[in-house]
Amino acid sequence: MATPSTPLLKDELDIVIPTIRNLDFLEMWRPFFQPYHLIIVQDGDPTKTIKVPEGFDYELYNRNDINRILGPKASCISFKDSACRCFGYMVSKKKYIYTIDDDCFVAKNPSGADIDALEQHIKNLLTPSTPFFFNTLYDPFREGADFVRGYPFSLREGVPTAVSHGLWLNIPDYDAPTQLVKPLERNTRYVDAVLTIPKGTLFPMCGMNLAFDRDLIGPAMYFGLMGDGQPIGRYDDMWAGWCVKVICDHLGLGVKTGLPYIYHSKASNPFVNLKKEYKGIFWQEEIIPFFQQINLPKECTTVQKCYVELAKLVKEKLARIDPYFDKLADAMVTWIEAWDELNPAGAGKA
Amino acid sequence: MATPSTPLLKDELDIVIPTIRNLDFLEMWRPFFQPYHLIIVQDGDPTKTIKVPEGFDYELYNRNDINRILGPKASCISFKDSACRCFGYMVSKKKYIYTIDDDCFVAKNPSGADIDALEQHIKNLLTPSTPFFFNTLYDPFREGADFVRGYPFSLREGVPTAVSHGLWLNIPDYDAPTQLVKPLERNTRYVDAVLTIPKGTLFPMCGMNLAFDRDLIGPAMYFGLMGDGQPIGRYDDMWAGWCVKVICDHLGLGVKTGLPYIYHSKASNPFVNLKKEYKGIFWQEEIIPFFQQINLPKECTTVQKCYVELAKLVKEKLARIDPYFDKLADAMVTWIEAWDELNPAGAGKA
Repeated sequence: MATPSTPLLKDELDIVIPTIRNLDFLEMWRPFFQPYHLIIVQDGDPTKTIKVPEGFDYELYNRNDINRILGPKASCISFKDSACRCFGYMVSKKKYIYTIDDDCFVAKNPSGADIDALEQHIKNLLTPSTPFFFNTLYDPFREGADFVRGYPFSLREGVPTAVSHGLWLNIPDYDAPTQLVKPLERNTRYVDAVLTIPKGTLFPMCGMNLAFDRDLIGPAMYFGLMGDGQPIGRYDDMWAGWCVKVICDHLGLGVKTGLPYIYHSKASNPFVNLKKEYKGIFWQEEIIPFFQQINLPKECTTVQKCYVELAKLVKEKLARIDPYFDKLADAMVTWIEAWDELNPAGAGKA
Repeated sequence: MATPSTPLLKDELDIVIPTIRNLDFLEMWRPFFQPYHLIIVQDGDPTKTIKVPEGFDYELYNRNDINRILGPKASCISFKDSACRCFGYMVSKKKYIYTIDDDCFVAKNPSGADIDALEQHIKNLLTPSTPFFFNTLYDPFREGADFVRGYPFSLREGVPTAVSHGLWLNIPDYDAPTQLVKPLERNTRYVDAVLTIPKGTLFPMCGMNLAFDRDLIGPAMYFGLMGDGQPIGRYDDMWAGWCVKVICDHLGLGVKTGLPYIYHSKASNPFVNLKKEYKGIFWQEEIIPFFQQINLPKECTTVQKCYVELAKLVKEKLARIDPYFDKLADAMVTWIEAWDELNPAGAGKA
C-alpha cells in the first residue's frame, strides 16, 4: 500500500467520522488518515466504547458530550443516526473537513493502485470551480486539461470551490426501491473526471465521501433531524446538499463532483432503508421544486444569513407538508446559533 | 479492425461531412460508415473533384449545387468554410444526423479496441436525457448505472434526447490563444461518461463529432455565416450550440455530452485560427450573457418558431455590437425558410 509522500493541508483539515463500527476501517485507511486529526461522533449508546487503534490522533464525542457542550441546543443534533456527524463539523477548528462512512474502504484506480481520496479532494477544493458555463473536457484545472474553444475568457478565473463530492465503486448509493429492484448491481465504472455542478442545478449530495471548505460553507452543512424520534432517515446528506447548493449558487461558490472514488463495501438493508426513506420519497417531490425556486435576497451576504433565511422559507412553504418541517426549520436556526457560539470568531463570516 | 455486427438505424441516419481533403479518412472509417448514406458538402472551389473510395453510398454537393437548389436563399450557407455542412442537414431526409470532420479518425478505448463512435451516439440519442436534476453517477440509462438515492422519482422518465456531443482524444478543441500557449498539450484522458447538460446551462458545442435528432432539433442546427466574406470563423458550431441549447431548454429536450471519442489527428494552425476567432473572442463576452438571459415566449411551440424568435432577438440586442449580427439575423430567417421549403412535410413540425 502506498504512503502519501507529503500529507497535504495536514494542519488545516479534520476527518469527521460518524461511529466506527468496523474495526478494519481505520487500519485500512491508516497510511492516508494517520497524519490528520480525526473527529469521531458516536451516534448511539454513549456507554459503548469505540476502539480506536494506536497511532491515531483523535477526539471522540458521544451523546453525553454533545449534550454537555451544546446544552439545550443539542436538540438540533440527530441521535442514533449518522446525521450526528455534523456536530463534528461544528467543533472542528480547521478550514477543511473530510467526512467518510465506516463501510467505505480504499478503492483502486484502473491501474490497480490505491486511491488517496484525500489528496484528490484537496486538489478539487484548492482549484476553482466553473459553475457559469459547462466545460466539455470537465475540470479545466486538472493536469492535461483546459478550457475548450468557445469558453468565455471572462469566466475562466472561476470561483472558489466550497464542496468536493466524491463517488463510490462497488455498492452504488441507491435508494431502497432501486436497491430492491437491482440487488446485484455494482458500480464498476471508473469515470476519470471531476466537474463543477452548474449554477442553478441541484444534485443528490451523498455524505459517504465528502469534503468541504468549512470557512466557506460550513454553517450550511447541517445534516438535519434524522433517526431516533424523527419520521425520516437517509435524507440527512440530501437535505444538506440542497441547502448547500442553493447557498453556493447565491454566494458565487462552486461544488465539484466526481473523483475521488472510495470502495463502498456493503449495501445497507433495503427493507430498513425503505422504512426510513419512504416519507422522503414523497416529500422530495415537493421539496426539490421548493429549492429550485428559491431566490435568496441580496442582503444574505454570509452563509449564516442565507441559512437563517432558508429556515424561514422552510417554515413558510414546507411546514404544510408535515409538522416535521416546522421542527426542522427551528432546528436549522438552533444549529446556526450553536455554530456561532462554538465559532465566535467566524460568526457572521461569509 | 472490428466491424459492427448490426448497423443501428441504418435507414434512419445520414453522415454529413464537410469536404474530404484527407484520403485516408473514409478508408479508416469504412467498417463503421459504409452501411450508412453519406452527404458530403464541399466547402471550396466547385471545379475541384472530391474522390470518394468505392463502396460508399453518397451524395456530394458543391457550391453550384447549393446555389441551384436554394436559389437566392443560398446566401445563408457559408462559402469556403466547414460551416457549409449545415446544408447537408437541410437536404437529408433522415431522422438522425451524424457529422464529423475529415481530420477525425477512429479512436481506441483503454482496452485498445476501436471505438464505434456512431454506435455510442445512437445509444445516447435513443435513451432519455435528465436536464432537471444532476445524477452523480452520470447517464442513468447506461448499462450498470441508474439514478442515485435522492433523485426525484417524478423526473426519472427524463426527456427526449435531441443532441449527442462527442469528444476528442489527442488534439483537444482549444481556441487559438490556448493553442499558442499550450502547443504540445494532448488529450489522453479517456473519461468513460455520458451526461446531460443541465437545463439553463450553456456549453461550447463542437461540430467535429456531433449527432442529433433532425426531427427534434434540425432547424436550429444552423452553422451561421462564416468564412469567405464574413468577419469571423470557427464560431459556426458555437453559434449553433448556443441556439440549440436555449431551444432544447425551452422545448424540454435533452443535450448529452461525453462519449464517444474520436481521434483528432491534427491541430489547425493557431495563427490562422486567431485571425478567424479574434472578433468572436470579444463578441462572445456579450453573446453568452445574451443567450443566458433569453426566455422564449410560450407561443414558440416548434423549433422553427423558436428560431425565428431568436433571430428577432439577435437583431434587437446584438446588432449594436456589429452590423454582422444584423446580417446573421436575416440569414437565420432565410435558413428557416429554406429548411421549410426543402422539408415541406416537416414545416412547422416540432
